[in-house]
Amino acid sequence: MDIFTKFQPLHNAFEQLMSISKHNPFGTTIEKMISPTIGVINGRQTLLFGTNNYLGLSQSDAARHAAAEAAMQYGVGTTGSRIANGTYSLHQELEQDLAKFFNRRSCMVFSTGYQATLGMVSTLAGKDDYLFLDADCHASIYDGSRMSQAQIIRFRHNDADDLRKRLRRLGDIPGNKLIVVEGVYSMFGDIIPLKEFVEVKKEENACLMIDEAHSFGIFGEHGRGIAERDQVEADIDFTVGTFSKSLGTVGGYCVSDHPQMDLLRLCTRPYMFTASLPPEVIAATKANLEIIKNHPELIHKLMDNASRFYHALQNAGFLTGPDISSVISVILEDLPQASQFWNRVLELGAYINLSLPPATPDNRPLLRASIAAAHTTEQIDQLVQIYIQAAQDVGVALKI
Amino acid sequence: MDIFTKFQPLHNAFEQLMSISKHNPFGTTIEKMISPTIGVINGRQTLLFGTNNYLGLSQSDAARHAAAEAAMQYGVGTTGSRIANGTYSLHQELEQDLAKFFNRRSCMVFSTGYQATLGMVSTLAGKDDYLFLDADCHASIYDGSRMSQAQIIRFRHNDADDLRKRLRRLGDIPGNKLIVVEGVYSMFGDIIPLKEFVEVKKEENACLMIDEAHSFGIFGEHGRGIAERDQVEADIDFTVGTFSKSLGTVGGYCVSDHPQMDLLRLCTRPYMFTASLPPEVIAATKANLEIIKNHPELIHKLMDNASRFYHALQNAGFLTGPDISSVISVILEDLPQASQFWNRVLELGAYINLSLPPATPDNRPLLRASIAAAHTTEQIDQLVQIYIQAAQDVGVALKI
Repeated sequence: MDIFTKFQPLHNAFEQLMSISKHNPFGTTIEKMISPTIGVINGRQTLLFGTNNYLGLSQSDAARHAAAEAAMQYGVGTTGSRIANGTYSLHQELEQDLAKFFNRRSCMVFSTGYQATLGMVSTLAGKDDYLFLDADCHASIYDGSRMSQAQIIRFRHNDADDLRKRLRRLGDIPGNKLIVVEGVYSMFGDIIPLKEFVEVKKEENACLMIDEAHSFGIFGEHGRGIAERDQVEADIDFTVGTFSKSLGTVGGYCVSDHPQMDLLRLCTRPYMFTASLPPEVIAATKANLEIIKNHPELIHKLMDNASRFYHALQNAGFLTGPDISSVISVILEDLPQASQFWNRVLELGAYINLSLPPATPDNRPLLRASIAAAHTTEQIDQLVQIYIQAAQDVGVALKI
Repeated sequence: MDIFTKFQPLHNAFEQLMSISKHNPFGTTIEKMISPTIGVINGRQTLLFGTNNYLGLSQSDAARHAAAEAAMQYGVGTTGSRIANGTYSLHQELEQDLAKFFNRRSCMVFSTGYQATLGMVSTLAGKDDYLFLDADCHASIYDGSRMSQAQIIRFRHNDADDLRKRLRRLGDIPGNKLIVVEGVYSMFGDIIPLKEFVEVKKEENACLMIDEAHSFGIFGEHGRGIAERDQVEADIDFTVGTFSKSLGTVGGYCVSDHPQMDLLRLCTRPYMFTASLPPEVIAATKANLEIIKNHPELIHKLMDNASRFYHALQNAGFLTGPDISSVISVILEDLPQASQFWNRVLELGAYINLSLPPATPDNRPLLRASIAAAHTTEQIDQLVQIYIQAAQDVGVALKI
């Protein structure tokens, strides 16, 4: 038996998808970047509505120049772990900048956002501990829970009462309880009712970790995320996040007020056993963090765009998620229709994301659009028109 | 109980280390890079002998310029997964370049070397399969095995007979068998007797994956690693490696001739659920791969340096590992002595790595030096003198 035999069902599902899909939804190539919101795909200029480039900062001049200068000054890689030769002054400066931005005592920078959540979840929750995970948490959180030796308890998505019930069921059993949630969930773009979760955490004397990957730079007066917006930052024990969304680069972080955070540098395997980020990535991230600090108008522009798009879709009769955030998804009924819709949108000039079961909540296919501050009002309106046209062309029933 | 209580033993061990160690061996900061082999540490120019910058390419002009140009042309991040908006033409070109370099059908590029091994090991070995891991395999391979659902069987380090025995013990049980080994092991720098492992793999009809992290760009006529040197490339099923050593950047890859490799793009979680590498990192890696292709003299220079250092240490009476490779370790008896030695070497002007139990084989502390093609003969000789002086100063007994 070949070691790939186990992937036969995946092979069949993919073949079936491709039999009804002109383009491979998981094989798009961006040939050229024209601007933060326009790229060349299949030789054609295409509106980009399927990136996480929420503030357009992957294309900021400040970050480009910072990256180029750092490459010249420090070289293109550290070739070492943070605990060996991989800590340059730049890495420490970025950690200090982030800690200050969040008003926290400590920050650890990781080489990817995936490794930040993987590392924090797998290390903080030890073998006598309990991990409480929202059912819709990101893959990296679930992968971290598999690497940890803790008991894993999954609670209903965004349901603080269900979490409370499950915590209470444990009673006075020894071991720490770590609750892991997200500010904005990536599939529907729906927002956590964080105040309710903070109540439960306090009642049950648990630790609370929040992943603000899709909310950093987007929610809260200063862009610190849902915890800032909901004024509960003092009750968050660990905030994790990524550089590859609003910050426009790659990497991840954890900020915390815990006085012993630095100990985690000596036992978090996805932090210790990996090369640190190259100087040019750190420098670009620092530059973009400065932009977020100094340009709160980016947040407002993004939310205006998101709100405009969300309401237009609702008015047109699309079934959307419950909240307005940087991710706005349309829920379709079946896979062939979703695939046709995605292909038609691409043909009409826009790139969005197709998300398929089992990766989606409720096992229904989703068309995900990511809205950026860099989109113009005209681009938002253009995408609405493309959705309406595509719905008509592929026969999506709208509720009007 | 605080969630950090479990780290108390680590805290105590670290406090004890710091009570006898002037500098924190896991907290070195490189303030400035002067050249591939000289950096500023604690305000002083220091010889760098503790990086993985084996060919000095983190500082190559070609890579610096390629990174700067890519940042200008494409921006500083893709802000998306390889299966969404994170595949630029650059990523595909690098995959093609690597596949061609290895004479393989396919290559997948990952965002870190850690995620490459984590992803390949956890995905290829399914719940009915068996993973055979060398006892000294890297942390990322062990982490991958924890994420996988396979049965994990550990065999004695570099012992093909022990592997054979354990494979035979399984008999005709169903399920695939995946053997995971490394070309050069990172702690002692010792080399796998790969031909023996290939024999076992063939006899027992198992799959063989080799991690050439510390051997790529160093062994084999073209620098493809130990499998090239030992002329057994046709018998390797999967080769994984990293960009953060000889290639001088950050990232990882897997090359293989398996016709269905592309299916792994749709089920390898550490590949799918992470942002892809920024354009400037890909461009720098491509540039450095070209240098490796066109400058085989780098390999010879590195091995000359390594051989010179290894023999000088042996002549001076240090206890070293068994092989000459890019990593040359001195084995010491106790932790206080190892820590003092490391500190003394730093004071005398060279940075090396201190590796402590339980991360080391045999539970003995190691002083690891990484040798680079970029080191001059004078720098090698200087390090030898520093070792001899440090040994004298801290009372290391030499066998003369």
